[in-house]
Amino acid sequence: MANIRGYNGKILRVDLTRKAVSVEEPKEDFYRRYLGGSGFIGYFLLKELSGGEEPLGPDNKLVFAVGPATGAPISGGGRNSVGARSPLTGGYGEAEVGGYWGTELKQAGYDAIIIEGKADSPVYIWINDDKVEIRDAGYLWGKTTTESQKLIWDELGDSLVRVAQIGPAGEKLVRYACIVNELSHAAGRTGMGAVMGAKNLKAIAVRGHRKITMADPAAVTSLAKQLRDYVKTSRFYQIMSEFGTPGRLVAFSMAGGLPTRNFQSSNFEGAAKIAGETMKDTILVGHRSCYGCAIRCKPEVAVGEPYHVDPINGGPEYETIAALGSSCGIDNLEAIAKANELCTMNGLDTISTGNTIAFAMECFERGILTPEDTGGLELNFGNAGAMVQMVEMIARRQGLGGILAEGVARSARTFGKGAEDFANHIKGQELPMHEPRYKQGMGVGYAIAPTGAEHCNNIHDDSYTRRIVGELASLGVFEPLPAQELSPAKVRMTLYASLWRHLLNCLVYCIFVPLSPSKTAELVEAITGWDTSVFELMKVAERCTNMGRVFNLREGKTREDDYLPRRFFTPLPNEPLRGVSVDRTKLDEAIAAYYGMAGWDENGVPTLGKLQELDIAWVAKCLPERVAARAG
Amino acid sequence: MANIRGYNGKILRVDLTRKAVSVEEPKEDFYRRYLGGSGFIGYFLLKELSGGEEPLGPDNKLVFAVGPATGAPISGGGRNSVGARSPLTGGYGEAEVGGYWGTELKQAGYDAIIIEGKADSPVYIWINDDKVEIRDAGYLWGKTTTESQKLIWDELGDSLVRVAQIGPAGEKLVRYACIVNELSHAAGRTGMGAVMGAKNLKAIAVRGHRKITMADPAAVTSLAKQLRDYVKTSRFYQIMSEFGTPGRLVAFSMAGGLPTRNFQSSNFEGAAKIAGETMKDTILVGHRSCYGCAIRCKPEVAVGEPYHVDPINGGPEYETIAALGSSCGIDNLEAIAKANELCTMNGLDTISTGNTIAFAMECFERGILTPEDTGGLELNFGNAGAMVQMVEMIARRQGLGGILAEGVARSARTFGKGAEDFANHIKGQELPMHEPRYKQGMGVGYAIAPTGAEHCNNIHDDSYTRRIVGELASLGVFEPLPAQELSPAKVRMTLYASLWRHLLNCLVYCIFVPLSPSKTAELVEAITGWDTSVFELMKVAERCTNMGRVFNLREGKTREDDYLPRRFFTPLPNEPLRGVSVDRTKLDEAIAAYYGMAGWDENGVPTLGKLQELDIAWVAKCLPERVAARAG
Repeated sequence: MANIRGYNGKILRVDLTRKAVSVEEPKEDFYRRYLGGSGFIGYFLLKELSGGEEPLGPDNKLVFAVGPATGAPISGGGRNSVGARSPLTGGYGEAEVGGYWGTELKQAGYDAIIIEGKADSPVYIWINDDKVEIRDAGYLWGKTTTESQKLIWDELGDSLVRVAQIGPAGEKLVRYACIVNELSHAAGRTGMGAVMGAKNLKAIAVRGHRKITMADPAAVTSLAKQLRDYVKTSRFYQIMSEFGTPGRLVAFSMAGGLPTRNFQSSNFEGAAKIAGETMKDTILVGHRSCYGCAIRCKPEVAVGEPYHVDPINGGPEYETIAALGSSCGIDNLEAIAKANELCTMNGLDTISTGNTIAFAMECFERGILTPEDTGGLELNFGNAGAMVQMVEMIARRQGLGGILAEGVARSARTFGKGAEDFANHIKGQELPMHEPRYKQGMGVGYAIAPTGAEHCNNIHDDSYTRRIVGELASLGVFEPLPAQELSPAKVRMTLYASLWRHLLNCLVYCIFVPLSPSKTAELVEAITGWDTSVFELMKVAERCTNMGRVFNLREGKTREDDYLPRRFFTPLPNEPLRGVSVDRTKLDEAIAAYYGMAGWDENGVPTLGKLQELDIAWVAKCLPERVAARAG
Repeated sequence: MANIRGYNGKILRVDLTRKAVSVEEPKEDFYRRYLGGSGFIGYFLLKELSGGEEPLGPDNKLVFAVGPATGAPISGGGRNSVGARSPLTGGYGEAEVGGYWGTELKQAGYDAIIIEGKADSPVYIWINDDKVEIRDAGYLWGKTTTESQKLIWDELGDSLVRVAQIGPAGEKLVRYACIVNELSHAAGRTGMGAVMGAKNLKAIAVRGHRKITMADPAAVTSLAKQLRDYVKTSRFYQIMSEFGTPGRLVAFSMAGGLPTRNFQSSNFEGAAKIAGETMKDTILVGHRSCYGCAIRCKPEVAVGEPYHVDPINGGPEYETIAALGSSCGIDNLEAIAKANELCTMNGLDTISTGNTIAFAMECFERGILTPEDTGGLELNFGNAGAMVQMVEMIARRQGLGGILAEGVARSARTFGKGAEDFANHIKGQELPMHEPRYKQGMGVGYAIAPTGAEHCNNIHDDSYTRRIVGELASLGVFEPLPAQELSPAKVRMTLYASLWRHLLNCLVYCIFVPLSPSKTAELVEAITGWDTSVFELMKVAERCTNMGRVFNLREGKTREDDYLPRRFFTPLPNEPLRGVSVDRTKLDEAIAAYYGMAGWDENGVPTLGKLQELDIAWVAKCLPERVAARAG
């Protein structure tokens, strides 16, 4: 086995159809070229799928991957990535998740798991270092994540086992079902939970006892200490630690950036009632962390009657509060916390769930849906009880929930009557809680991201900007640009920021942690012993975005799939952004500029030159004939 | 004045026509975007010229530039760059040079000098910190560099004044005249000395007393110490210190890489007689250095009768020994040392001089030139006396020397009779002493380099490879590739290596010093205090190559100007590379691949996307209409 510091040198392959387990040992240059996480996923999905595999069929592959930073004793290193062809978008699917499971997988001796085929009945995978078993999960099927984790612990007699699992929503193939690590960390986006469900795979339980080798442990420790000292004294991170991600919700709303009532406006009059400060004063009972993190941004909440929320299931983060709160016109934090718990227990992505319910609410208010359709529910904006009930109906595919479980794009087609005008999605994926009229750079990123509307590989070009620009200075981005600007300079910032975030998803490393690019290269060097650089690492990120792009092209996506929903071309109704919309011509120009800067042709197809420059000419062979790569 | 650490924040502008001196103070983002040296030169030449200016007319501009590394107390930091539209190529002209003059300029308080116009009679510029004078140089005109430096010292009463100057060759507008720093360091290539001569500018004398500010002097010192310790113990650098650059000459010849008899073959039977080891055993009397360097690779030689060489004028380096030696079929080291001294005293580029004489020798042997043309000289390969005499004739433009002073491209056109078949030049510039059939990656680099055949911004993909790949590993180049390979992978290595060397020419930093890219970023950070990265720095290098490219396109150069001379498509006659030639189809493919990887279209025109990505969209406006940048 190659002894590659910072890695195990092993990829686990599990064929559920044949119930076969094998281990592969790639060479070091594979590790260096693709790094981990998103890089591995892009590589395996593009190379091992042929295109056209049914996302919810047995031929799709599901990849779990860690990276060199996973399990490193440093804030931000407690993450893993999951990828497959997405049942939500039909394209490249990937989600990032925190917690402890990734570290445990690495300690068990693997850098990735590739899951193939479909079990003939429900199973879970039990990884105990070298021992890998495919076990019966019939008795777990239909159980919530909370129940299921306990049952697995009981069966294995070890409550230190880390469990990544789906809930009933994944089993029922809700297209935006997620995968939950340790009851409160979600690989939320692009429906990875449905892929797992379609494979009859309930959970992956892991226990690892290996020590992760690092080239220069002292250097890692020193970087970790610098980071810890910084986050303890920085006001920004004090807020993050104290209130979690919802700590900026009111500021967003006041700036005109809080998605409200299915993105009809961007200020929510009830913002203060659902903000992090309020949460702290009311329902917050603790802070949860990912492995090794000094920030501890994850809330634990407790709610009594009528909603009853158990802190074991964590608490709502910013995206969740906005999606199930302001976007549904709801200012009842306890109801939001309940909906969050239901999403976690059932394994639903809170962002897509909130968006889908908000979309249904708008349809209801506009008469496209009637009480007959909703089973009598008054599905108006602001109806907290109806929202909570709808989460359960989606998870169980009950009534209207059975349609909404398909996501807003498919629901809109089912509803007809102009519902598509209010269906806010990109490539089929519902939008994160960042208003594209407010953060117009992020809008461009949404339009182009391989996973559809996505915030984990995009820039926040708003009031964070000064911090982001600080981060990006060492990439050659010096000036903050107004959030509503859509210039070539903004596009460049967006491109670089997106590459930077893709890089973090390869490491796999948290996007919140303030490690500059140069320090990040130092970290990779300390872990792997490679003489590396930000240049080399950014090229890995470019490999990622190009592999994702080609994956989507192979699945038939075109230039037309890089767009924003029509809502964002209409003016915002409220101050401070009254009258602001995305200019369609400017967006088209920005997308064209992005393609050009990325080394893609006018149809968004990577040129052969770009792929050769990235040392991945093999990717050109995955392009469909209709868009074969040009040389230039 | 902006206080930019590592810089002075001042650009000196001298208008020789109006005898006006002024100082400009660019903002920090200019410094960060273009860095120095080659970056400044590319910027000023592209921005301030309009295209079509006569290289030897008053409208051409001559730029001297230093960079953040210039004057830093570290091996490799004692360099400066010089640029102008080249009288040799008609395109982008630039030369790099070592010594002490650059450091002195920086200590005098300037980051660059832009020289405009033409003095109505010979002058020199005297820079004494803030005091800048344009002085009469009538009494210096016609004098050798050796004489002239002494006269300037006498006039100024200070032998610590550093002098960059031309010799009689520059005055006589020999198209490959060079600029000489301190009698032995030459800004050799692309005829910068002729541009200086055309401006009636004999010299720039500098004395500076400022302390160069650095953000973190201790970090610079620490890097300097690491480097010093390394070069003192590395066998490679011990050879470099002991024998200078000619230390590898015999190895080159044995590998089939030593240009011999105007590139007719690549082994020279007399190699051992002109090698560094022989020089050490015979004529070497000392080692000269550039500012702050622990390697001290520059020889000082003394030769008695009949050639008489004074060590004050330094000694021949590898390029010189090969160009005036093996390439002329000459194994007489004392004659070569004399020719070198004559080049230095007259201000001739030894590479172009040697090539031009070798070309004339081949023409003579083939009967294209006769004794009538040569003034009776038996200009055969191997005739050391004729070679030495021809150097003087070129410098004075006497007889045949008046034609050869125009370079091989123009001489071949004058001679006719098929002489162009033996005229080895690219874009009008003669080739450095690296055989493109032996180092085929370097051949691609030669073909595309903005300055024409050029080794200072190109890779050596031969037996150095393992060292070079070690250098390039942190750029994502992992595997040494055979020197004779011409694959996309080789092209990628060539592109990255070329960018890396352009970066060194921006810093301005010696290409010989083993500072890895990541350490280089550390050095820039220690000097400037910027949070920078190899990514940001490599983007500066890309700006450079794109500005040079656009400069050439504006001057009418096309895809057809990126080529190799026809000789290199014919097979080498000797072992070990008998039968090896450059494959024309493969070279075409390699050039096309290079364009694609560089973000240029199929005609080698930078795309608008690439220029926008580099944050230099203004460069697109400098493209002539016939090749206006596409968006893609």
